[in-house]
Amino acid sequence: MLRNVTRAAARSVRGHASAATHAPETTGGSVSVAAKYYPNEPKGPSLITESVPGPKLLAANDHLGSVFDNRAAYFVTDYYNSVGNYIADADGNKLLDVYCQISSIPLGYNNPELYAAATSPEMASALVNRPALACFPQLDYAGILEEGILAAAPPGMTKVWTALSGSCANETAYKAAFMYQAAKARGAMDFTDEELRSVMLNKAPGSPDRAILSFEKGFHGRLFGSLSTTRSKALHKLDIPAFDWPVAPFPELKYPLKEHVRENAAEEERCLAEFEEIVASHPPGYIAAIIVEPVQSEGGDNHASAAFFHGLRQITRKHEILMIVDEVQTGVGALGKFWAHEHWNLQDPPDMVTFSKKFQAAGFYFSDPNLQPSQPYRQFNTWCGDPSKAILAKAIYQEVQKNNLVERTATTGDYLYKELEGLAEKYQDNILNLRGENFGTFIAWDCESPTHRNELLLKMRAAGVNIGGCGERSVRLRPSLVFEPSHANVFLNALEHAFHI
Amino acid sequence: MLRNVTRAAARSVRGHASAATHAPETTGGSVSVAAKYYPNEPKGPSLITESVPGPKLLAANDHLGSVFDNRAAYFVTDYYNSVGNYIADADGNKLLDVYCQISSIPLGYNNPELYAAATSPEMASALVNRPALACFPQLDYAGILEEGILAAAPPGMTKVWTALSGSCANETAYKAAFMYQAAKARGAMDFTDEELRSVMLNKAPGSPDRAILSFEKGFHGRLFGSLSTTRSKALHKLDIPAFDWPVAPFPELKYPLKEHVRENAAEEERCLAEFEEIVASHPPGYIAAIIVEPVQSEGGDNHASAAFFHGLRQITRKHEILMIVDEVQTGVGALGKFWAHEHWNLQDPPDMVTFSKKFQAAGFYFSDPNLQPSQPYRQFNTWCGDPSKAILAKAIYQEVQKNNLVERTATTGDYLYKELEGLAEKYQDNILNLRGENFGTFIAWDCESPTHRNELLLKMRAAGVNIGGCGERSVRLRPSLVFEPSHANVFLNALEHAFHI
Repeated sequence: MLRNVTRAAARSVRGHASAATHAPETTGGSVSVAAKYYPNEPKGPSLITESVPGPKLLAANDHLGSVFDNRAAYFVTDYYNSVGNYIADADGNKLLDVYCQISSIPLGYNNPELYAAATSPEMASALVNRPALACFPQLDYAGILEEGILAAAPPGMTKVWTALSGSCANETAYKAAFMYQAAKARGAMDFTDEELRSVMLNKAPGSPDRAILSFEKGFHGRLFGSLSTTRSKALHKLDIPAFDWPVAPFPELKYPLKEHVRENAAEEERCLAEFEEIVASHPPGYIAAIIVEPVQSEGGDNHASAAFFHGLRQITRKHEILMIVDEVQTGVGALGKFWAHEHWNLQDPPDMVTFSKKFQAAGFYFSDPNLQPSQPYRQFNTWCGDPSKAILAKAIYQEVQKNNLVERTATTGDYLYKELEGLAEKYQDNILNLRGENFGTFIAWDCESPTHRNELLLKMRAAGVNIGGCGERSVRLRPSLVFEPSHANVFLNALEHAFHI
Repeated sequence: MLRNVTRAAARSVRGHASAATHAPETTGGSVSVAAKYYPNEPKGPSLITESVPGPKLLAANDHLGSVFDNRAAYFVTDYYNSVGNYIADADGNKLLDVYCQISSIPLGYNNPELYAAATSPEMASALVNRPALACFPQLDYAGILEEGILAAAPPGMTKVWTALSGSCANETAYKAAFMYQAAKARGAMDFTDEELRSVMLNKAPGSPDRAILSFEKGFHGRLFGSLSTTRSKALHKLDIPAFDWPVAPFPELKYPLKEHVRENAAEEERCLAEFEEIVASHPPGYIAAIIVEPVQSEGGDNHASAAFFHGLRQITRKHEILMIVDEVQTGVGALGKFWAHEHWNLQDPPDMVTFSKKFQAAGFYFSDPNLQPSQPYRQFNTWCGDPSKAILAKAIYQEVQKNNLVERTATTGDYLYKELEGLAEKYQDNILNLRGENFGTFIAWDCESPTHRNELLLKMRAAGVNIGGCGERSVRLRPSLVFEPSHANVFLNALEHAFHI
């Protein structure tokens, strides 16, 4: 999937940047955290090969393809020479990165404080002596959790179960939900003989006919349970058997929001009503839980208002359905709150919140002790998480706090959104349905068509910016938490340039 | 689940060990690799608290329980003070470990060569700059794979797809199998409109009614697809929805093998015939693949002969079903071959081999290019593996090769098995159905009842040996690859002592 772009485009964007409409050194008046972490961070992209991909990249990619599926590769990366917001390819080209490993680099490349954690004695032990955490927990695991993952817990959450990826975090949350509902239905009774027998044949009642409800265009992972709740794209799901679980509509809002207030409220009401109808059309207890993203990310950066999520919480409470909020992509600060769902100000918190990606560690938060099944070894596997990732999560959380990176991202996002709003007026065919206002740097827009979108991504790469898409025709911004107004300016100049080539 | 055992038992086993029937310094005539790695490894267990669990362990476990489900905890572990074959608990007690984090510690605790890998610059970068490997593969990933995971590839395997855990390795292999069979059935045609539409609702034909067949008592993981193939224990499966996939019988062999040659051959024939009947009772193509362990580990260390696995390969070929060998627990040397299925000498290798645990890295090997789906982004997720684990796998592989640890484990296993055979004659009620001859240290036996087994595990811990069970009433040995005859002697003395308390 590597496509050739010429260097001419990059050369001219540098020319363009020097006559910048977006002032390159604006930092919003505060000291740059990026400059503190990365004194040698480039001031802009540098493309040094005649064309991108260059010769070293192509050779490395051919080599990799002989042993590993590399057909989704954007480019082969030199991580040692990547720095801060800039990612280096195999040929030494350096691109401003607003995609960040599909939204999973929290503090930029080669962050010195994460290096300190990665080279600590506790990290070395965690790697070499990887524990089966549920059977032989390490002496300091509670402390690592308390100073990191749990210190960052969303409002109302007091416990965590750790996992390895977003898919795995969601699936363990689903298991907790299914065991919770079965225990509630069973009451004080023990498992019946019929349950014990039928479950070994994957039949009811031991393997019950219960479901997780998800929303159209939602993305929750790629393993068999999570993929059954993923509704993003056919290509993600084709040919893989799936559980016949229900799906509900997710609002399709119109933009700009302030011009469609009544229409959007009606759309959300319609979706809530249809959701409740779907719930009511199934036997009580059949839907164990719903799972929903604060912003449907992979599915196209689809937003809904706080009112919609309040509605979901009310309906799930009414029907005794658990509510799982999937913060795998939205969590850890990018939306100007540590957890995106804090924007909702729910009085009654979700039952579980899942995380992964930028936190490096994965898992789900909860507080109801009934979400721990009745017996040990039911929510269980060999490793039950990975202390090496929990140590990184702790360092990430502490750096985020120390440097106010959530607030800073909110400020940068406000600036970026406002500038993009200006560009959207100027280039009305190029930036459609701009969204993410007041949501930090978690910003997206639509292009006229999938083709236009894909072309724009390539033009941006030619202009020295690594950027990703989502949905059918959307562009999503997913920079790290050390993306500042000065980086936003580099980005905005490249974008405006791209609209001219 | 922490149970109290008194120190008296441990004191007396030390006395017992000093009058050892099993000579403590036997190393099979070769230089000890354990001594090279671990000059300070204890010569035997040391229990220093009045009772186990001791006060620090209990306090640490209470603390942990307030934030993390610790009900399956054997004990809280001090990994910093664990060394080689000895695991230290929170109070400083040191136990010989023949369980090794549920069979996932390859070279002992705090191995110096793994420390070198864990503190290398490439490890620090892999941790801090974790790549989305399919989109932004790192420049040296092909090399890391080639010098590690792929250098260790089973016969006939040339490629790998990396994952994060055994469950995830198996599920990605299942996805490869489903996409392979769908592509074969579809031929040169593209996806139909009906497939594209139906798949978004989790319905056929887009979400097809196909299956993975597994075997009674098999264990393949705990996520939704893998759990649907797991048939070990009801408690692993209860209350979790499952795919209605078929299960076939696995031979129940009688021991000693040499006294039941004809009977066991007949049992395997019966299982193969029943397996083929199950296959024939479904439409062609319905069963995409089978998955089978070389030794059913979690399910009770159930063995079958090479002839049985040859039969499976023949029948799967005949019916165009893929064969996945799950080497998550059996792989990486413990059976006296790097991969357990090498014992079968198959001319026609399996289609996929999955791995995790002792390799730290996880994934599946394959060679048929059609096991890479037709388009990118189908076998895909954010990280697609973890270079930090691939770097460890490389170091593990190189140490195993350099020190002939597979051959050494075969030798130690032969010694250990022979001694256990002697004990089984002497203590006929205590060691039933001893198994694992010629399979390195991958040895198990049955106790009279689940209660006797559980008591024995506790007595062994009181005697300073950490040991695990499997199945209903089995004890399984899963020491690391630096478990040598001298360690076997410590173990044997403790075991014989435990039979007397």
